Amino acid sequence: MKHLPVINCCTPLAGSSLSNEEAVELERLFRVLGDRHRVRILNILLRARGEPVCVCEFTSELGLAQPTVSYHLKQLRDAGLLDREKRGTFAYFRIRPNAMERLHSLVEPAALARAV
Amino acid sequence: MKHLPVINCCTPLAGSSLSNEEAVELERLFRVLGDRHRVRILNILLRARGEPVCVCEFTSELGLAQPTVSYHLKQLRDAGLLDREKRGTFAYFRIRPNAMERLHSLVEPAALARAV
Repeated sequence: MKHLPVINCCTPLAGSSLSNEEAVELERLFRVLGDRHRVRILNILLRARGEPVCVCEFTSELGLAQPTVSYHLKQLRDAGLLDREKRGTFAYFRIRPNAMERLHSLVEPAALARAV
Repeated sequence: MKHLPVINCCTPLAGSSLSNEEAVELERLFRVLGDRHRVRILNILLRARGEPVCVCEFTSELGLAQPTVSYHLKQLRDAGLLDREKRGTFAYFRIRPNAMERLHSLVEPAALARAV
């Protein structure tokens, strides 16, 4: 991967004063999340509890064409939220370990209290 | 307020199967957060630890004109993240109690485990 995954960025929202760069990284992360299809993809993967899900399952569950699903999966992957593996002709995706924990910690209400 | 604040919506991301409507609500919430200026506004308010912050402080800290700041504050307020009060000629804003806790719970990695 060329870029540091977005999910690895950043001072938490409630942390010490955010720089412009950190604000831009948080903006990128929340924009990736700010899409109804990507939200549903994450929900499907979280319900799979870390097990890999075939790209073909998303197309049928979301009612979207495969290129559209692949576009959204790529956005989530580039943000560091998903891992991809190839099995035969199909790609499988799963939540990257600790990605949700990291997202959770970025919106931790008490982050500031802990940091002080 | 005409609409239910967005922050009050929704099954958590890791909850049971999201409906289309819930996915749209989560999309709206994350889109509100997906802006560098709004991220910095939240950071300023969280650092104020629930104390009201004058609109004039945001303009100077963010280097933005007041109409722009007011636009972003309105987005955050419409999402149910902020409260506003008028004191003399100035408007003051603070994080709505429990809004961050609610956001935090929406991205709780273990929400599914708890729900089962």
